[in-house]
Amino acid sequence: QLGSYVTLKWLFALFIGVGTGLSAFAINVAVENFSGWKFLATFAIMRHSYLAGFVIYALFNVALVFSSVYIVTSFAPAAAGSGIPELKGYLNGIDTPGILLFRTLVGKILGSIGSVGGGLALGKEGPLVHTGACIASLIGQGGSTKYYLNSRWIRMFKNDRDRRDLVTCGCAAGVSAAFRAPVGGVLFALEEVTSWWRSQLLWRVFFTSAIVAVMVRTAMGWCTHGNCGHFGSGGFIIWDTSGGQEDYSFYELWPMALLGVIGGLLGALFNQLTYMLSSYRRNVLHKRGNRVKIIEVCVVSLITSVLSFGIPLLNKCTPCPDPVKYPDIVCPRPQQHYGNYVLFNCPKDSQYNDLATIFFNTPDDAIRNLFSTKTVHEYSARSLLTFLALFFFLATITYGTAVPAGQFVPGIMIGATYGRLVGMLVVNLYKKDGIDEGTYALLGAASFLGGSMRMTVSLCVIMVEITNNLQLLPLIMLVLLISKAVGDAFNMGFYEQQAYLRQIPLLESRPKRFLRKLSAKDALHTSKVVSFPRVSKVGSIVSVLRSVSHNGFPVIEQLQNGETAVIGLVLRSHLLVVLQTKADFQHGPTPGHENRTKNKYSVTDFVKPVSSKGLSIFDVNLTAVEMEMYLDLQPFVNPSPYIVSEDMSLTKVYNLFRQLGLRHVCVVPRPSRILGVITRKDLLPEVILSMRFLTL
Amino acid sequence: QLGSYVTLKWLFALFIGVGTGLSAFAINVAVENFSGWKFLATFAIMRHSYLAGFVIYALFNVALVFSSVYIVTSFAPAAAGSGIPELKGYLNGIDTPGILLFRTLVGKILGSIGSVGGGLALGKEGPLVHTGACIASLIGQGGSTKYYLNSRWIRMFKNDRDRRDLVTCGCAAGVSAAFRAPVGGVLFALEEVTSWWRSQLLWRVFFTSAIVAVMVRTAMGWCTHGNCGHFGSGGFIIWDTSGGQEDYSFYELWPMALLGVIGGLLGALFNQLTYMLSSYRRNVLHKRGNRVKIIEVCVVSLITSVLSFGIPLLNKCTPCPDPVKYPDIVCPRPQQHYGNYVLFNCPKDSQYNDLATIFFNTPDDAIRNLFSTKTVHEYSARSLLTFLALFFFLATITYGTAVPAGQFVPGIMIGATYGRLVGMLVVNLYKKDGIDEGTYALLGAASFLGGSMRMTVSLCVIMVEITNNLQLLPLIMLVLLISKAVGDAFNMGFYEQQAYLRQIPLLESRPKRFLRKLSAKDALHTSKVVSFPRVSKVGSIVSVLRSVSHNGFPVIEQLQNGETAVIGLVLRSHLLVVLQTKADFQHGPTPGHENRTKNKYSVTDFVKPVSSKGLSIFDVNLTAVEMEMYLDLQPFVNPSPYIVSEDMSLTKVYNLFRQLGLRHVCVVPRPSRILGVITRKDLLPEVILSMRFLTL
Repeated sequence: QLGSYVTLKWLFALFIGVGTGLSAFAINVAVENFSGWKFLATFAIMRHSYLAGFVIYALFNVALVFSSVYIVTSFAPAAAGSGIPELKGYLNGIDTPGILLFRTLVGKILGSIGSVGGGLALGKEGPLVHTGACIASLIGQGGSTKYYLNSRWIRMFKNDRDRRDLVTCGCAAGVSAAFRAPVGGVLFALEEVTSWWRSQLLWRVFFTSAIVAVMVRTAMGWCTHGNCGHFGSGGFIIWDTSGGQEDYSFYELWPMALLGVIGGLLGALFNQLTYMLSSYRRNVLHKRGNRVKIIEVCVVSLITSVLSFGIPLLNKCTPCPDPVKYPDIVCPRPQQHYGNYVLFNCPKDSQYNDLATIFFNTPDDAIRNLFSTKTVHEYSARSLLTFLALFFFLATITYGTAVPAGQFVPGIMIGATYGRLVGMLVVNLYKKDGIDEGTYALLGAASFLGGSMRMTVSLCVIMVEITNNLQLLPLIMLVLLISKAVGDAFNMGFYEQQAYLRQIPLLESRPKRFLRKLSAKDALHTSKVVSFPRVSKVGSIVSVLRSVSHNGFPVIEQLQNGETAVIGLVLRSHLLVVLQTKADFQHGPTPGHENRTKNKYSVTDFVKPVSSKGLSIFDVNLTAVEMEMYLDLQPFVNPSPYIVSEDMSLTKVYNLFRQLGLRHVCVVPRPSRILGVITRKDLLPEVILSMRFLTL
Repeated sequence: QLGSYVTLKWLFALFIGVGTGLSAFAINVAVENFSGWKFLATFAIMRHSYLAGFVIYALFNVALVFSSVYIVTSFAPAAAGSGIPELKGYLNGIDTPGILLFRTLVGKILGSIGSVGGGLALGKEGPLVHTGACIASLIGQGGSTKYYLNSRWIRMFKNDRDRRDLVTCGCAAGVSAAFRAPVGGVLFALEEVTSWWRSQLLWRVFFTSAIVAVMVRTAMGWCTHGNCGHFGSGGFIIWDTSGGQEDYSFYELWPMALLGVIGGLLGALFNQLTYMLSSYRRNVLHKRGNRVKIIEVCVVSLITSVLSFGIPLLNKCTPCPDPVKYPDIVCPRPQQHYGNYVLFNCPKDSQYNDLATIFFNTPDDAIRNLFSTKTVHEYSARSLLTFLALFFFLATITYGTAVPAGQFVPGIMIGATYGRLVGMLVVNLYKKDGIDEGTYALLGAASFLGGSMRMTVSLCVIMVEITNNLQLLPLIMLVLLISKAVGDAFNMGFYEQQAYLRQIPLLESRPKRFLRKLSAKDALHTSKVVSFPRVSKVGSIVSVLRSVSHNGFPVIEQLQNGETAVIGLVLRSHLLVVLQTKADFQHGPTPGHENRTKNKYSVTDFVKPVSSKGLSIFDVNLTAVEMEMYLDLQPFVNPSPYIVSEDMSLTKVYNLFRQLGLRHVCVVPRPSRILGVITRKDLLPEVILSMRFLTL
């Protein structure tokens, strides 16, 4: 049985990898094709009439966005937004209802195709993480809530720990698929999403990530033969900047530090604005119903269309760079291809519109154009500033609407824009070879993500993997160090703020300093603890469950010598199952036999279905007679919960929660005696075995 | 104060990075130059007489190895071996005396220059990890044990936790310097060396790693101008295989799986042989004194010289590949350079000796030659098999001698050899383009390291970083998965075995299954716990410390109502300091005032000097009068040690130790009542603050 359990774990990891890889592929193909058709049609019609071109463009966008918001609001409300704050909550022990349902998965995939294809200022990367997590959870339970396999094998995974492990794999798979960054995915899952780490899990997460990479590569290899329409150009590395700057001089460090400061400031501003807007939406706007949500998104889509079409229209075209001096540059780009130097509303054919190159384009291509190396002076400072202001505005109003929305791509766009600006400044200031604007754009992107999301190692590795430029690692790090420090001076990270808004109690990695002066008993809410005697009246259990919202209750036994003993902790969810089943009600208050309840419940009865809300006490119907019966709680308790002494410092308690991923810790009075002290040596297998041999 | 503490932490990380980077650079320059002179001299003299050439070669080797073993045995015995098992022990709470001394650092650096320069079958990578850790520890205590700064700033770091953090940074810095693999270094430190992980630490470790990369790169850039003698060729990537195989077909999977199996088998065999040899050396040979150790190493060095000179001499030369067909290949290589196709004892100038190319060379170059791409059929199967057998033998007898010795390079050599063999087989079998023997050599290297060291993610990332070939990630992983699984079927990993031999109780990442059925009280050695009353007689404390070897003792107070209360845990090391100081001895058994002992001790008095053996009870001299005095232990206890209930499952206890890095856990009787249950929500800063506001 152990062998098949291990085999199954690895098989599941394989399936998660394959599933997430395929989903990412499907989303990419769909988005690229919708965008491709959209831009082709618009360009074609624009030749005759600009107005008709705009109408087609806007209609395409609004239609796609409407399809997205309609699916989300009607069928999968949990698919809105990024999903990462909720996943962080789930992996730290706080469930948000519905985030791992099958319908959420479908809503997330279809919704992000609509919202990204519809040209909104958001990305598909965050939703892909959520998609990976949904796939993992569904695989773990053998299907959706309604239709599922329930074999003996699958049932082994119906416990909290294995599920969380699977979802962790899913998160890593999502990042790996989104950025084609397997190592970055592993680090993201471990650094950002979970707060604990186990070596065995690490290896499985890594395996999943690698499978995703293989899947995506295989699928992309298949696409190079023209099987996927507009999708298929480009290699495995998303934004390859390996032609960029290889080395750096000391005088370049100050503009890079400047990027860090700008990233910190703008990131913190972005977090604050999105927080305020999301809070307004949650508390006012979105309470008015789905119709308001739909209208809101459509309005945002219309604004986006107007700006991304109209502003480049007002922009003056630039003559193409000298083809003799720069023989590698194709300017303007041919109509059918993606690339730099977009010809948009230009009087001559040897001109390009620099604003259209980044604004009137898919986000992936816009970033590629911003990162592009060896294209000095492609953009004018005025165009970049205009784009920065407008796109920052669009990204701010778009996040929080009822569509799947990732923050990576908008963050990279904003950062790359001011990064490129700073790069232009440096090029003009030093007039030296070897300074590349594209490299500054990359560092700018890192700085904004660092200033907004406050991720560190995983972000660094992801940036290296998406650009395939290991040489820049120390520079990316410098920029991230500064931008995170600057951002932290103002507010919390983006995901933490969003989690706070949703009332998900995430524990930060560093406990606050004032916790040191407090002890465990200071964290206890009430002076009186709510506990049950071993054999309780059904009615009193029900009334307690109705009156308090606790999820865990100590169970106390009255010993024959008059003393009491704590026999364990019983969970609300388990009590609800027992109350609903009614099989264990008894007429008298005498404790039953220990083995009485065996085989009455299978282990899965006590597992809260991962993807639904679970039972509530108000769903349980009991007759007056049943209310007068008794229940022996002993078989249902967790007999050894983690305990701390009342005067343990809260910092230690905090670390206990974080490092072990706990949900409950029992506070006990200062012990009156100690039975012994266990050290590491005592836990070595050979020591334990020899000791037990001696005592036999 | 908080600000300067944080600043200092980062400064220390910077210094560790700079120091480790410089040490690695110094070792590299010295080793390459010694080797360069050695080979140049040997080749020059060989033109006149083979015998004289051999004598020079052997003398050079024995002299370097003798200097290494002399330094190690006379001044720095803790510098022998790899150091990684001891570091794992240290970071998991078990100190090995002397591993972090200044003299160990010096011995490690000089010793590895001698042993690697002297051509022994070992590497400088493991010792570099130890070097980084020593540097970190010395920086943390502001100097060596004798000479050190003792400013207010440094004293803040004189605690266990900050020291372990610094040493973790040092380990990562060492790997980063050894392989120029910053991300691999971070993962190595976290996966392999420590068993716990904290997000804040992660970021600092990463910073250190990146600083090392910058240092090494800067130093190497300086060397390209010919400032460093024989050192200076080659880029930042040690063994760049980016010209190798980019893609793979499905039929290549079985030979890769085969590599995994071979790696697992040979790795397990290697572990077993080195374990038996080390055990023999520890228990018999090395007990006979330093002279035996020195003779042993010199004999091994002589054997190595004879084999690496003589065996290529017996080998028949191969004609160079057709210069028309392969215009890129320089064959034979010019005398002054390193490279493939070594001309050694060949009758014609258009021939090369394939065995000398790998055997009569520095290890780094040999590996480069084995990994080399687009050099089909460079080696004959007979040469590779000969080399494999001989080098496996040499690596086995060399490890465990009294010189600093890393296992990475020998492992890579062995693995690359059979990898190349399998690659030749595949090339001959399928006769297709795009199959590269060098890529198989790389996978073979990964498989042997996986089969011997059983590392996973960090090894994978290190292999990718040393070869700069991200494409191969999934293949490396496949090979590692198989080789680790095969190896695990036979014995423990290399470092675990060596730690076991040194009686360092490392807790494996996965608790054994039988622990589930046991509870905390089963791990208690004796039925009676050794505890002290709050006010104890000095004499009884001394006699207890002499009679038992425990490191932690519960302190019990007799309350006025006749009950007892545990007031905390006192450490042996703290007791020894108090006994030696004698300042707190009192004449009567009444407890003193609480604040009495303030200012008598500075916090550093209680810190065991990290790099020496610490006090022993037999160092403390007390008069008969003092023995009759009393000591109030209350000021010296840790008032809130971690506690577990007697019936908590040992698996949970095990995880508590591992995840929190604990040394002691107190076992208490099942509690009779519970004061309350803390949940995650209760620990949110805003919840605690609002509650405290209410209770005011």
